[in-house]
Amino acid sequence: MVKKLLQVLAGEPVSPPPIWLMRQAGRYLPEYRALRANAKDFVQFCLTPELAIEVTLQPVHRFDLDAAILFADILLVPHALGQKLWFAEGEGPRLEPVRDAGALTKLSYDPALLAPVMQTIKGVRAALPPHVTLIGFAGAPWTVATYMIEGQGGTDHAASRGLARDRAFFSRLMDILVESTGAYLIAQVDAGAEALQIFESWAATVPDDLRREAVFEPTARIVKAVKAKHPKIPIIGFPRGGGAWLADYARATGVDGVGIDQMTDMPAAARTLPAHVAVQGNLDPDLLLAGGEAMKEKARRLVEAMAARPFIFNLGHGVVQPTPPEHVAQLVATVRGA
Amino acid sequence: MVKKLLQVLAGEPVSPPPIWLMRQAGRYLPEYRALRANAKDFVQFCLTPELAIEVTLQPVHRFDLDAAILFADILLVPHALGQKLWFAEGEGPRLEPVRDAGALTKLSYDPALLAPVMQTIKGVRAALPPHVTLIGFAGAPWTVATYMIEGQGGTDHAASRGLARDRAFFSRLMDILVESTGAYLIAQVDAGAEALQIFESWAATVPDDLRREAVFEPTARIVKAVKAKHPKIPIIGFPRGGGAWLADYARATGVDGVGIDQMTDMPAAARTLPAHVAVQGNLDPDLLLAGGEAMKEKARRLVEAMAARPFIFNLGHGVVQPTPPEHVAQLVATVRGA
Repeated sequence: MVKKLLQVLAGEPVSPPPIWLMRQAGRYLPEYRALRANAKDFVQFCLTPELAIEVTLQPVHRFDLDAAILFADILLVPHALGQKLWFAEGEGPRLEPVRDAGALTKLSYDPALLAPVMQTIKGVRAALPPHVTLIGFAGAPWTVATYMIEGQGGTDHAASRGLARDRAFFSRLMDILVESTGAYLIAQVDAGAEALQIFESWAATVPDDLRREAVFEPTARIVKAVKAKHPKIPIIGFPRGGGAWLADYARATGVDGVGIDQMTDMPAAARTLPAHVAVQGNLDPDLLLAGGEAMKEKARRLVEAMAARPFIFNLGHGVVQPTPPEHVAQLVATVRGA
Repeated sequence: MVKKLLQVLAGEPVSPPPIWLMRQAGRYLPEYRALRANAKDFVQFCLTPELAIEVTLQPVHRFDLDAAILFADILLVPHALGQKLWFAEGEGPRLEPVRDAGALTKLSYDPALLAPVMQTIKGVRAALPPHVTLIGFAGAPWTVATYMIEGQGGTDHAASRGLARDRAFFSRLMDILVESTGAYLIAQVDAGAEALQIFESWAATVPDDLRREAVFEPTARIVKAVKAKHPKIPIIGFPRGGGAWLADYARATGVDGVGIDQMTDMPAAARTLPAHVAVQGNLDPDLLLAGGEAMKEKARRLVEAMAARPFIFNLGHGVVQPTPPEHVAQLVATVRGA
């Protein structure tokens, strides 16, 4: 059975394009909320294979999407590094901040802590229809580092940006994250992931003169490590907020596909990328939330504009919580020309 | 007396380049903190000419900068529109959110409320050394709208992005902001401002398909209104986070200069702009905070890279509070080749 998503990531345009949605498994689905009630702690929810398998499969079953994405969290890597991680109810993640050399020496990657993720991948893979691709993922080093340093989410990243200029500290932290993230992604492919996505969700806060050492090089090293072990695994990089330098990113990192956010003119950005690089995106999640003709029209125009290109339909960011599930069904039908 | 900043904004490269810094008047200066203690409320602080004049002049006197920028706040326009505005101690601005047609009809611009700003401008202008340019400013409509809609700062702007797709509401709000901001800036020039800056601090949250109606058109209408009354007044637009579309912005808005943030490769971005458009930026405020050789080296390289261009040295964003004032003195000396 041909997997459309893998065809596109091999550089081949497919019509209609494959579609999946970032955060397609999540709180906007009533069946997700029902399962979520079974685990008090979000980390344990991610690390309980029977729950994570079911949650990963839910949107695929409901909408017949072209890909499932592993249900997990980018902060599982800090968790496996031994950093204390918890989710404050309604407030997002909290971590014991890592801000000095002493805290760095305490970090040590324990792959056994993420063994449940590999069981989830095996379980999902066994249950997926043959035309559906299973995508594994991890956060990119800079993005994960911002949480590790700040001790929480946020968008200013003052402490992270400051420490990024502390060469000894920052290069050590990047090394730790490159090594652990590389090992984690390799294990995901070993377990059955058929494509990978690296989320650089906070690309936008990196100053221009640090982009090479904070974004390009660490990501390139991960891509290289994964491909050394699994030469054919396709990797999508998603530098959210990186609309001004996508071509440099693609060249520097060696990814097979580039995710594009909704702030970017996707057809124009795609023209700056090498022809074999797939592009993925970029419908505004607010249009999915709103639904109706505005959403459908924009989706149709995107599909049309990207027809000549290896292209994966997606959002420019994750599904937002209040999105009515029916809008997703309408979007899938629209993209497939129904 | 020749004003270097105005020469540059007329399209003429000047060596060494003029320098001023965003948020050059502010809490990092002990003399600012001493004055700030005289007014309990931040809005009243901005609207007390004897205090605002002194605060505007402080960094010019201390560092001999090439420009003074009016000490005020972009939220004075919502204040003059009748929206309730207050500053929660240590938490930033709070406003009674404007989220429906009913709230819009209550907004009515009262220029008398901003008369103290014009007195501040007159007072500063009278006191400034003749080689120093006085810059007036306002927030751009999208940026001000995010505060008006959210009721506070923040970086996600979910409510604003949602309402931006409510055509009737959003176009009315943009009209209100275009008209009031245009009138406010014209009054600033009438009072003695010699250049203007329009701060689009939250350009990065605007989805690609709304950029024209949320950013380009409202800004273009303000520029046009101001230039209809004052044809020669130079206007700098600063779309922070807009590194991917600066050339479109410059063309669409008709500004004389473009401010560039530290996430952008300034020499590369400058090459995409029409040759007569001045560029301003973009040293990382964290480098100013750190000071020392790293700051000086980067500043020297910037000056060198921009030598052929009409160029104003500035930061890529505002001075951060813990910055030692001596670093500013070192930066000014470095830029002037001392």
